[in-house]
Amino acid sequence: MKTLRGGVTAPKGFSSSGLRAGVKRWSRDLGLLYSEKEAVAAGVFTQNRIQAAPLQVTREHLRGGKLQAVIVNSGNANCCTGKKGLKDAKQMTMWVAQALGISSRKVAVCSTGSIGVLLPMTRIERKIPSLVSDLSKRKHLEFAEAILTTDKKIKETAVRVGPGILGAVCKGAGMIQPNMATMLCFLTTDLAVERGLLQSLLKSITQETFNRITVDGDMSTNDTVLLLANGLCGHTLRSPKEKLFKQFEKALWQVMAELAFQIVKDGEGATHVAHVKVEHAKTEQVALRVCQSVANSNLVKTALFGRDANWGRIAASAGASGASFNPERLSISLGGLWCYKKGVPLKIPPHRLKAVFRKNPLPIRIDLGSGRAEASMLTCDLTDTYVRFNANYRT
Amino acid sequence: MKTLRGGVTAPKGFSSSGLRAGVKRWSRDLGLLYSEKEAVAAGVFTQNRIQAAPLQVTREHLRGGKLQAVIVNSGNANCCTGKKGLKDAKQMTMWVAQALGISSRKVAVCSTGSIGVLLPMTRIERKIPSLVSDLSKRKHLEFAEAILTTDKKIKETAVRVGPGILGAVCKGAGMIQPNMATMLCFLTTDLAVERGLLQSLLKSITQETFNRITVDGDMSTNDTVLLLANGLCGHTLRSPKEKLFKQFEKALWQVMAELAFQIVKDGEGATHVAHVKVEHAKTEQVALRVCQSVANSNLVKTALFGRDANWGRIAASAGASGASFNPERLSISLGGLWCYKKGVPLKIPPHRLKAVFRKNPLPIRIDLGSGRAEASMLTCDLTDTYVRFNANYRT
Repeated sequence: MKTLRGGVTAPKGFSSSGLRAGVKRWSRDLGLLYSEKEAVAAGVFTQNRIQAAPLQVTREHLRGGKLQAVIVNSGNANCCTGKKGLKDAKQMTMWVAQALGISSRKVAVCSTGSIGVLLPMTRIERKIPSLVSDLSKRKHLEFAEAILTTDKKIKETAVRVGPGILGAVCKGAGMIQPNMATMLCFLTTDLAVERGLLQSLLKSITQETFNRITVDGDMSTNDTVLLLANGLCGHTLRSPKEKLFKQFEKALWQVMAELAFQIVKDGEGATHVAHVKVEHAKTEQVALRVCQSVANSNLVKTALFGRDANWGRIAASAGASGASFNPERLSISLGGLWCYKKGVPLKIPPHRLKAVFRKNPLPIRIDLGSGRAEASMLTCDLTDTYVRFNANYRT
Repeated sequence: MKTLRGGVTAPKGFSSSGLRAGVKRWSRDLGLLYSEKEAVAAGVFTQNRIQAAPLQVTREHLRGGKLQAVIVNSGNANCCTGKKGLKDAKQMTMWVAQALGISSRKVAVCSTGSIGVLLPMTRIERKIPSLVSDLSKRKHLEFAEAILTTDKKIKETAVRVGPGILGAVCKGAGMIQPNMATMLCFLTTDLAVERGLLQSLLKSITQETFNRITVDGDMSTNDTVLLLANGLCGHTLRSPKEKLFKQFEKALWQVMAELAFQIVKDGEGATHVAHVKVEHAKTEQVALRVCQSVANSNLVKTALFGRDANWGRIAASAGASGASFNPERLSISLGGLWCYKKGVPLKIPPHRLKAVFRKNPLPIRIDLGSGRAEASMLTCDLTDTYVRFNANYRT
């Protein structure tokens, strides 16, 4: 899949901007994404019981099925901020709506950063006019930068889909766990897609991509994936049977899978990625449970950091998952090398074990030997950098 | 509760020994505990699906209800070792039985250390005679040392219970999680206790003590708690209504709670302990689920390491637990200081937040505001020492 330049503003009619409002101390922290025509919109949100204020507002606005702008700040999650937080989130959509001359119900709002701190609203208000006047197709990197928190890199992409384009940008580094994370992802397209189709597509692909990655097993309060389709390329997707729809589905899957991989690779302090795959499980639930347990095990993740082919920790973590399987049928391979076969350890020379770490991502296969279900997940190592980082950084 | 000297050999008729057999590179790694009279025995084991070979043997021997000796090695868990591992574990009980002149079914065997490696049986066999001839009341520290892996300290205690004595020793530093861990605990008493009573007592107190601690959320394959009652003090506990039984129950609770605390305090790399308590939950299941989620959150644990009173991470982790509660009724206090009250953050001067860390263990209270159930758990911080340690150490 050839990628295009332009990220989230690559499709027709989209523009963006990003600047420093002073929510964070040093860098860009306020971004605006705009579609010149109102777009059909779909969204997927965190499953955390605690939902940040901006999510409550964005969910509400999404009910109308259409969005034209998204305002995002980093540095402050506007979460656990009570009624004032909710009022602030609404206020942000109103300021943007007024400056753009549109209804505030067409504006989504997202925040990411520290929890439990009120937003510096005066600083944000002051920057709304520049944010709007700066809107430009060329400012996708500014937007991409404004939404980052602990990420080391900008994560954006764009691809052609028949007559249209699909663009995307995302952020997320820590607090990444199955069922999303402090993860924001904005997808744009100039194809027109029927609302119901768009929502079900986004939901099912999120399940297979962003909900299958983990950095530290913590689930954020602010995760949001939004997809805006403004139809400006002049083609409409109406049925899942169309060829163009299938192309779009495939492109969306690839873009989201690529961004999910980028998130894990850029995981806080991460030096190595692993792809954990559980095979031949009785049910998908069993497969997923074992997969999550292994991918989130601190002992497995520190072994990955130490480049220690410690399949024993993998076995222990699979066993600790609570899922039911027969230990005598359990097999484990690392980087294609079987270390444990049906409950029996195989003798492998140390240099061959060391060599498996040449593969990054490292494939970890866990075969339960009793069924057809499978599940897989991307994870990264747990490093001293992660610990120092999170001991000193306020989420 | 006044503690006595002598640890696990403090009660009448118990003796022990510990020496270096060469399973580990540097330190004592083989220990023997012996009762001159066969003892009524109870046991609780890991809930990991993968059960190490020695557990399978010990469970089997426990069916007879009586034990007279326990052989323990550290440095190798004899887990995921297939049929050979099972044969080796049995062989260990046979060697000990022969040297002591008792039935091998009266011998329990425990192993702790690396997974997936066969035991160096020749080295172990060679040391059995010295292990038996060394048996002595004064060698409780040698035994306590022989069962350690990554622990920094010996953990033992003994208390008087009416006419009798209760002694205990345990190990466990990493891989500690709700539902036990690489944790071995041996309890001895010279009181006589009826088998069924002893087993149910041990099980219920384990639930409230060792199953309520976490170091890294990983559950081991080898956890074992054994309690041997040889009756040599001449008193028998027959009914839960007796005064002496209640004294024994209380002493057992205190000894196990104290050892559980010692394990967390000595958690790999730990510098600070926290006592997480969830209150006013609808059900005990909800309370426990929230409690486990918070106590195992890497972000909460790194904040504890950074002495950062980050109640936002606690709220996020409670929300991510999957348990159902009303976020608008959620309150959180740290070290007795309420930071978040019914969904609203309270303004607290930074110096007061810093000051809460003077308390160790730090009390973390999470009030769900909608019921009467509660649950609590001990946890420790996640440090760069933990990571470096587990990146370099083979479990």
